[in-house]
Amino acid sequence: MKELEYLNIISKTLADSSFLGDDCAYLRDLGIFVTQDTLVEGVHFEFSTTDAYNLGYKAIAVNLSDIAASAASPEYVTISLSLPQSVESGFVRDFYSGVNDICQKFGVKVAGGDLTGANSVMISVCAIGKKISKYSASRFCAKPGDVVFVTGNHGESAAALKLFPLDVKNEFFKKHIRPEPRVDAGKILAGAAESDFALMDSSDGLVDALFKIAKSSDVSIEADFSLIPFNPALKRYFPENYKELVLWGGEDYELVGTISPEVFKKLDKNMFFEIGKVLDNDLGSVSVKFGNEKEIINEKTLSEKSFNHFKGGNS
Amino acid sequence: MKELEYLNIISKTLADSSFLGDDCAYLRDLGIFVTQDTLVEGVHFEFSTTDAYNLGYKAIAVNLSDIAASAASPEYVTISLSLPQSVESGFVRDFYSGVNDICQKFGVKVAGGDLTGANSVMISVCAIGKKISKYSASRFCAKPGDVVFVTGNHGESAAALKLFPLDVKNEFFKKHIRPEPRVDAGKILAGAAESDFALMDSSDGLVDALFKIAKSSDVSIEADFSLIPFNPALKRYFPENYKELVLWGGEDYELVGTISPEVFKKLDKNMFFEIGKVLDNDLGSVSVKFGNEKEIINEKTLSEKSFNHFKGGNS
Repeated sequence: MKELEYLNIISKTLADSSFLGDDCAYLRDLGIFVTQDTLVEGVHFEFSTTDAYNLGYKAIAVNLSDIAASAASPEYVTISLSLPQSVESGFVRDFYSGVNDICQKFGVKVAGGDLTGANSVMISVCAIGKKISKYSASRFCAKPGDVVFVTGNHGESAAALKLFPLDVKNEFFKKHIRPEPRVDAGKILAGAAESDFALMDSSDGLVDALFKIAKSSDVSIEADFSLIPFNPALKRYFPENYKELVLWGGEDYELVGTISPEVFKKLDKNMFFEIGKVLDNDLGSVSVKFGNEKEIINEKTLSEKSFNHFKGGNS
Repeated sequence: MKELEYLNIISKTLADSSFLGDDCAYLRDLGIFVTQDTLVEGVHFEFSTTDAYNLGYKAIAVNLSDIAASAASPEYVTISLSLPQSVESGFVRDFYSGVNDICQKFGVKVAGGDLTGANSVMISVCAIGKKISKYSASRFCAKPGDVVFVTGNHGESAAALKLFPLDVKNEFFKKHIRPEPRVDAGKILAGAAESDFALMDSSDGLVDALFKIAKSSDVSIEADFSLIPFNPALKRYFPENYKELVLWGGEDYELVGTISPEVFKKLDKNMFFEIGKVLDNDLGSVSVKFGNEKEIINEKTLSEKSFNHFKGGNS
């Protein structure tokens, strides 16, 4: 996997690579979180499955999701939009309508950016969030005994793509083209926490997030498939492989985390769903129970199945 | 000019467009400046005229230059690097060596970013700076009576491109492929200022910057060509049009500003060069004196001559 090789090179080349690792960097001296995510036509999206409005909405959403996964409050975004000459001015209007709607919804301000030419549409967004908890939310903070939780359904975004273009009006499609970042859930966790806790978003898939938490925190995670929330329609559309979609699909942008049972007890059970527990055996592994059976996920399983955007676009 | 049309659409579409205008946004509640600039292969650079190391260096330099133009102290950058599959891992190492060298030089930390696939190389950098002056440095703050100044030579970067590939080893080339942001000059101005003052960088050309300051501040600017510093070799290479290169070339990344004569008197004259004065007649115009002759620059001259990156890449 080239991305991992490159990240390795980057951390060896930089004199200070202490900020690489989590999705957001916490800049302690400034009291802010910062993250940057890029969407590339032909790699992350195609105009056969989205449009300018939803693209603007999603480009902001994926960055706010990273801020939410740090249990911080998103405050500002900057946006770099690169466009081929063939694009019409209506595109810019619709794109920024999507940007404006999601920013208004979450009280985020657009603090400028950049507008350039390019061969295909590319959007790079930088989001800045304010620390609102005295505790850290990070993939490095899971502790044995913690409850493992998610904030919502998994599998729908990947299902939408699998059904496209045969069934473009399927019920999963909105979650794919216009994901809702779990900003409110992140803020609630920030207020409820009584010590550092583990948090990520499930942009690269649920198991991928659980595995990163287990590895980074040097614990193991046991999840029970029967506890993971998903849209029952998934089973109807994909009787053979709905489990795969739920566990590995990616791009659902829910929060995934672990927190002490005492704190979890106080959380709204319509927003936070317990799916397993953190253990102190088989460190760095994830297991998923299906009734009496159990699947153990290790590095090899992960690299075969997890979602990988680094595939070189249309070239 | 499409870029202006698009900026107009953007400011009409956003509910709060108060941050659009200056190159950096000042986020008052957080006490920070933020800016984002993108470099696209085929639009902003070609690998016939640069390489991975210099590209990494320049991608950071152009953003630090925006922070310097706010008289702020650059502290952090995030970097989104998009690469075609054909790129070798040596590219990533060399690119990040350039990033590391300029960051070390200016005490800036790399706070993460993103790595994605793409059809061509694209780099989007977000830089965060700390406010260090109690006064504002912005294109909106020129006052009649101010001294107009620059921090160094103009015209070399554009000259380098004009000579390429006939004379690839020309003496201007380093300034084009590896510009030095005037971070130190920005900090000195921050310390010396006794009220708000005007400041920009000359990334889009010297006259372009002067014109933006004159228009934004509702003043006029009179510059004297004989006072503008440039490399005398320009005259040797371009006897016919060296003046054009100096005035309109772009990408020199020097600071251009206006400040009260009292403050200017105290500044180091090897770093800050007086080139003219701010007047209160012919508001919004720029004039350049060549001996006894005078050229007046208005909107029309500007749109014909100024450097325009928005040209659609290789397509």
